[in-house]
Amino acid sequence: MPYVNIRITKEGATPAQKLELIEGATDLLQRVLNKNPATTFVIIDEVEMDSWGVNRENVVTMRAREAAARAAAKLGDKS
Amino acid sequence: MPYVNIRITKEGATPAQKLELIEGATDLLQRVLNKNPATTFVIIDEVEMDSWGVNRENVVTMRAREAAARAAAKLGDKS
Amino acid sequence: MPYVNIRITKEGATPAQKLELIEGATDLLQRVLNKNPATTFVIIDEVEMDSWGVNRENVVTMRAREAAARAAAKLGDKS
Amino acid sequence: MPYVNIRITKEGATPAQKLELIEGATDLLQRVLNKNPATTFVIIDEVEMDSWGVNRENVVTMRAREAAARAAAKLGDKS
Amino acid sequence: MPYVNIRITKEGATPAQKLELIEGATDLLQRVLNKNPATTFVIIDEVEMDSWGVNRENVVTMRAREAAARAAAKLGDKS
Amino acid sequence: MPYVNIRITKEGATPAQKLELIEGATDLLQRVLNKNPATTFVIIDEVEMDSWGVNRENVVTMRAREAAARAAAKLGDKS
Repeated sequence: MPYVNIRITKEGATPAQKLELIEGATDLLQRVLNKNPATTFVIIDEVEMDSWGVNRENVVTMRAREAAARAAAKLGDKS
Repeated sequence: MPYVNIRITKEGATPAQKLELIEGATDLLQRVLNKNPATTFVIIDEVEMDSWGVNRENVVTMRAREAAARAAAKLGDKS
Repeated sequence: MPYVNIRITKEGATPAQKLELIEGATDLLQRVLNKNPATTFVIIDEVEMDSWGVNRENVVTMRAREAAARAAAKLGDKS
Repeated sequence: MPYVNIRITKEGATPAQKLELIEGATDLLQRVLNKNPATTFVIIDEVEMDSWGVNRENVVTMRAREAAARAAAKLGDKS
Repeated sequence: MPYVNIRITKEGATPAQKLELIEGATDLLQRVLNKNPATTFVIIDEVEMDSWGVNRENVVTMRAREAAARAAAKLGDKS
Repeated sequence: MPYVNIRITKEGATPAQKLELIEGATDLLQRVLNKNPATTFVIIDEVEMDSWGVNRENVVTMRAREAAARAAAKLGDKS
């Protein structure tokens, strides 16, 4: 009878990936606690990137910063 | 002061039906626990069908299976 | 397949009352949206009164204020 | 490591306002409980107005009633 | 940055089992969506059995019924 | 009408601290979005430390590791 709520940022998870999460979470509950898959709910919430904050910034800003860092690292590789 | 969160799959609930849920949940809390409707919140979340899993499959697949079973049953009735 | 989460303050709801909430919420979803009771979850969270705030105060304070108002009203009736 | 979930009705909160909520909630947890911003999550859910009920009505109706009251008050001011 | 909330009935899950859930859910998000374990939260809520309903009954009743069915089946084996 | 749910590990937050969270979250919603405090709910969930995971470990383990690091640092200061 478990209820599993997975919240992720909306960044293009495909139906196939979401199904993998559903299967994986259901299997996890069955393996660890012998819970019945027939009554295991898994609900995935995809949250807009500007509605999710961590470390006082939203994920839009965080992803931009990460991308800039990767771009800078690449430039460094070439020099 | 109750907070009621109703999560359903997004399958076309109308504003009128959602209002019935709001009224019904509020009345339930008042009847059973004498809670004040003025401070009873009811929030309905409609979840995409491929984001809701039960029994290791998503609701898209479950609904397709159910529809196929109904179609098969109809054919059986006619034969 | 609905999931209903009812959050109330911990103020002595009995198992019988909680069962009424479970039955009532399940019936509501069946009546309004034809949802199957077999896969309707109802989860009741009882929250400590000092962990629930409304109007910038916690429910401990609110209940004390309400009780004082009732006591004052009673005294007023007698005078 | 706190997790803060802010649910509001979808009535046009801007990205800048949502960021203020993220910053404010993170700062609050740091100030009161010395929680580390780096592991403080703030997630904002914007809920459709007809999916949020209080006092047995949805927020669409409540906002219409409030607007009508404001309009009536304005008329009264002029008479 | 995922947030995973696992809700189960309070029926004696051990700290070791809860850790397995934490590890398993974190690994799942990393495997499927390449999410960083360092910012993956897993929160397990253990809900009292009389606060969890499915199919219009609480889990106390359901477990009693299941136990009775098992006992009856055992008697049947012996006869 | 906002609903704010603050989830923290159960590590001794006092009623006074919880009240500060309630006040602070209510004020934040009023300041940023002009929300009415009278219908702002703040609910604080205190979660057992072995039920909260981050980075594939539970908070019991994390706190022990942090304490060991602090003790080691202190020893280092003295040497």
